[in-house]
Amino acid sequence: MTDFGYEDEFTGVCRAVIDRIAPGTSVIDLTHGIPPGDVRRGAIALAAAIPYSAPSVLLAVVDPGVGTARRAVALSAGDHHLVGPDNGLLWLAAEAAGGVNRAFDISEGPARLEGGRRTFHGRDIFSPVAARLALGDDPAGLGDEIETRSVVRLELPVARIDSGSIEATVLFSDHYGNLILNAGPGLIERSFLRPGVRVRVERVAGKAGSADGTDAGTAESTGLPGTASDADPESSGRAIEVSFGAAFGEVAAGEALLYPDSSGSLSLAVNRGNAAGRFGFGPDDQLRLTPA
Amino acid sequence: MTDFGYEDEFTGVCRAVIDRIAPGTSVIDLTHGIPPGDVRRGAIALAAAIPYSAPSVLLAVVDPGVGTARRAVALSAGDHHLVGPDNGLLWLAAEAAGGVNRAFDISEGPARLEGGRRTFHGRDIFSPVAARLALGDDPAGLGDEIETRSVVRLELPVARIDSGSIEATVLFSDHYGNLILNAGPGLIERSFLRPGVRVRVERVAGKAGSADGTDAGTAESTGLPGTASDADPESSGRAIEVSFGAAFGEVAAGEALLYPDSSGSLSLAVNRGNAAGRFGFGPDDQLRLTPA
Amino acid sequence: MTDFGYEDEFTGVCRAVIDRIAPGTSVIDLTHGIPPGDVRRGAIALAAAIPYSAPSVLLAVVDPGVGTARRAVALSAGDHHLVGPDNGLLWLAAEAAGGVNRAFDISEGPARLEGGRRTFHGRDIFSPVAARLALGDDPAGLGDEIETRSVVRLELPVARIDSGSIEATVLFSDHYGNLILNAGPGLIERSFLRPGVRVRVERVAGKAGSADGTDAGTAESTGLPGTASDADPESSGRAIEVSFGAAFGEVAAGEALLYPDSSGSLSLAVNRGNAAGRFGFGPDDQLRLTPA
Repeated sequence: MTDFGYEDEFTGVCRAVIDRIAPGTSVIDLTHGIPPGDVRRGAIALAAAIPYSAPSVLLAVVDPGVGTARRAVALSAGDHHLVGPDNGLLWLAAEAAGGVNRAFDISEGPARLEGGRRTFHGRDIFSPVAARLALGDDPAGLGDEIETRSVVRLELPVARIDSGSIEATVLFSDHYGNLILNAGPGLIERSFLRPGVRVRVERVAGKAGSADGTDAGTAESTGLPGTASDADPESSGRAIEVSFGAAFGEVAAGEALLYPDSSGSLSLAVNRGNAAGRFGFGPDDQLRLTPA
Repeated sequence: MTDFGYEDEFTGVCRAVIDRIAPGTSVIDLTHGIPPGDVRRGAIALAAAIPYSAPSVLLAVVDPGVGTARRAVALSAGDHHLVGPDNGLLWLAAEAAGGVNRAFDISEGPARLEGGRRTFHGRDIFSPVAARLALGDDPAGLGDEIETRSVVRLELPVARIDSGSIEATVLFSDHYGNLILNAGPGLIERSFLRPGVRVRVERVAGKAGSADGTDAGTAESTGLPGTASDADPESSGRAIEVSFGAAFGEVAAGEALLYPDSSGSLSLAVNRGNAAGRFGFGPDDQLRLTPA
Repeated sequence: MTDFGYEDEFTGVCRAVIDRIAPGTSVIDLTHGIPPGDVRRGAIALAAAIPYSAPSVLLAVVDPGVGTARRAVALSAGDHHLVGPDNGLLWLAAEAAGGVNRAFDISEGPARLEGGRRTFHGRDIFSPVAARLALGDDPAGLGDEIETRSVVRLELPVARIDSGSIEATVLFSDHYGNLILNAGPGLIERSFLRPGVRVRVERVAGKAGSADGTDAGTAESTGLPGTASDADPESSGRAIEVSFGAAFGEVAAGEALLYPDSSGSLSLAVNRGNAAGRFGFGPDDQLRLTPA
C-alpha cells in the first residue's frame, strides 16, 4: 500500500526489486491511491485489510518525511510483519493485528540497496526488507531492535456521544463519495441511532480541533482538500436530514442515509450518488448528529 | 472487474480474501475503473474479455443494489464461471461465452464470510465463492440452483439502420476519449460505411429513449456525466464531418474518424486527440450518421 | 507499461492473452498511467525500471501510430527483451540495458493473433510476442531480423550549462507534482549547484525549441497539457527562489526545493505540496537556473 499513485513507474519498480530478491512471491496491491502524504488515510486502509489477511508482510509507504531523520521500521505484530516509515502509518494495522511485539530500525540495515537516493525509500529500503521477510528472514538480521514503546503512534480523533447527540469527524471520503466518520460499532450501539430513525446532520467545524486527539493525523496530513466538489454543495452551512439504515437500497435513488460501512464505521452516503460532492463535506469536518 | 476504483483498499481486501481461501490462484485485474454503478459499461468490458480468456472464474462487482433483495449469483457459461450481482452485469459475458448453462443463488451460501456487513458483498460473498470455484468446487455446493431464465438480462440499445443512415447510441467513452457506439461488424457491413467515405455526424437526442431497449442499462446506470469536458465543446448542436477508416493514422493528427474499434464496434475518435472532450458527446447520446 | 489507463479492460485483456499463451508467467505492472500518446514519458519510465529488473521481457505500448506503417518490434538488449512499437518508446530502456544487440520486425510474425483489429496491437501482436519470449522462444522465430541501426531512436532535449547557469527542460511532472528536468547526476556535479545554495528559477520558454534535440520526443508527444493547474499559478512569468538540497525535509512544509530525484535527475518540488500546480510549470517548459 502506498500513496505512489498510478501515473509513474514507482510501484512497478518496487515490485521489480521484490521480485529480484524473492522471485515468485505473491504480492497483493492493497491500493496505491492513498492521497499524497495522507498518513491517517493510509493507516486506516492498512488496518482494514488485517482481518482478511493470511499471515503476511504488509509493506506500506506514505512518507512525507522521507529523507529526514524519521526512522524506517519493521514491526512484528501477531502473525504479520509490517514494514514502512515510523510516522504512525503502521500503527492502526499493528493494533488490529494484536499489537507490536518487536520493532526494528531498518534505516541503515543490510538489506538496503546500495547507491540508493534519499527520496525513494520504498524502492531502496522498504521493498528489499519486505522481500527478505517474505523469504522468511529473521527481522533481527535486518535492523537494530528498538523499544516497541518508541514506535510512533497514530490516534484517531475521538467522537463525542451523549444520549441525544453524536459529534463525529469525517475521516475520509471513499471512491463513491461516501463519508466515513470516526464512530465504530460500539459507539453506534450506545447512541440514539436505531434502524429507520431520522437524523439531523450539521457541520459544526471545518477542521477537528486539537482537543480531539488528532495530533498524529493532523501532523502528517497534507492539508490537501478532499474530493468533494466545491461547486455549490447542497448543504454548506445548513443541516440536512437523513435516515439511519443498513443498506443503500433502503432509501430511494438520490437520497442520503447514515449506515455502518463495510468496516462497521458510521458513514454518510447517497444511494447511487456522491455524498462528498453533494454535501461539500470532507476530511476533518466535524459533524453533529441529532434526532430529527 | 469492479467499479471499486483505485483510491481505497477494496480490491486489495478482496484479493486477500481470495488468497486465503485459494492460495496461489492466478488473478488478473480486468479493470476496477468502471464508473460507479455503471452496470452497462461493466457488462460490456467483461464480455470483451471472453474471447481472450482461458477457462476461468470471472468475478465482477458493479452493484448499486448491494444490500437489497437483488440476488448474488454464480453462473456457468461455456468453459467459464461468472460470479456477481444478478443485475445484468454478467449477461453479455455469459452470452459471449455461449449462454448460461446453470445458475445458482449464492446470497446465503456456505462460502459467505461470517459477520459480513450488508454493504460489501464483493468481499463477503463474491470473492469467497470465486475462490472456491477457482479451487474446483462444484457450484451446486455454493448456492441453490435457480432457473437460468430467471437470471436478469441486459439488453443494449439497438441501432437503427437504413440504406442511407445509421442512428446509433454512444455506449461509453474510453480512456482516450474514443466514443464507442452500439453498432457492431454486421451492422457496419450492411450500412453505407465504406473505407474513405465521408460521414456527417449529428447528435439527435441527449439520452437514448426507452424505445431503444435500454431498460436494464438505464435502470442500473447512475446518470453520472461522462468524461467529456463541458467547456465549450466544438460541435454542440451542430453536425460534424468525418471519414470512415480503419486506423487513426489514416487521418491527420487532430482530425476525427469513424472506425471499427478493437472489439469491432463503430467508434468515433480523434487522431492523437480526445473525441469525447472535443465534441461534447457522452454515454446515451444518440447520433445520426449520414453520407456527407 | 502502457498508456491504456485504468478505466477500460485493455490491460486485463492483454494479461489474459499472456496468461493463455504462457500460464503462470509472473507479470509486473510498471504503470498503465502514461499520459495518452506520450512516448517520451513512457520511454523514461521504462528506462527507470532497467537497473532494478531481473532479466525479463519488457512489454511497452504507447502507440499513437497504431495501425499505420510504423513497425512492431522485439529488441534484445543486455539480459532483456523489449517488445513494443518502433517509435522510440523502447530506446532509452534499451540503452540503459546496454544497447540493442538484435532487432526483429514482428508486425506480421507468427505469434500475431488471428482476426486482430488494426487498432489494438497491444492485445494482438505485442502481448503474444512477449508471452512467447517469456516462454523462452527465440525472437528470430517471431519476426524478421532487421538492422539494429534502423530502430527508431529517442533523444531527450539536452540541458545547457555554463559556470553560472543551467538551462533545462521540464520532462514531466510526477504523481506528487514534482517537476523532473533533463539534468542528470553528471550535469549537476559540473554545475554551480551545491548543498544549501539558493537558486533563482525562471521560465524562459513555453516549449523547448527544436534546437534542443527534442525531435523524436516532440514528434510523438501529444501536446496535451501537463497536470499543472492553470488557475492562477504563483509564478507565471516571474522568477522564484529555492534551495538546492537532498531531501524534502530540508525545507519547511510548503517550501520549494531543487534536488536530485530517485533516478538522480534534477527536480523541482514543494515539500508536502505540488510544484506543478503551484508554479504552473509543465512538460517542455524551459527553465533557467542561476545563483540567487
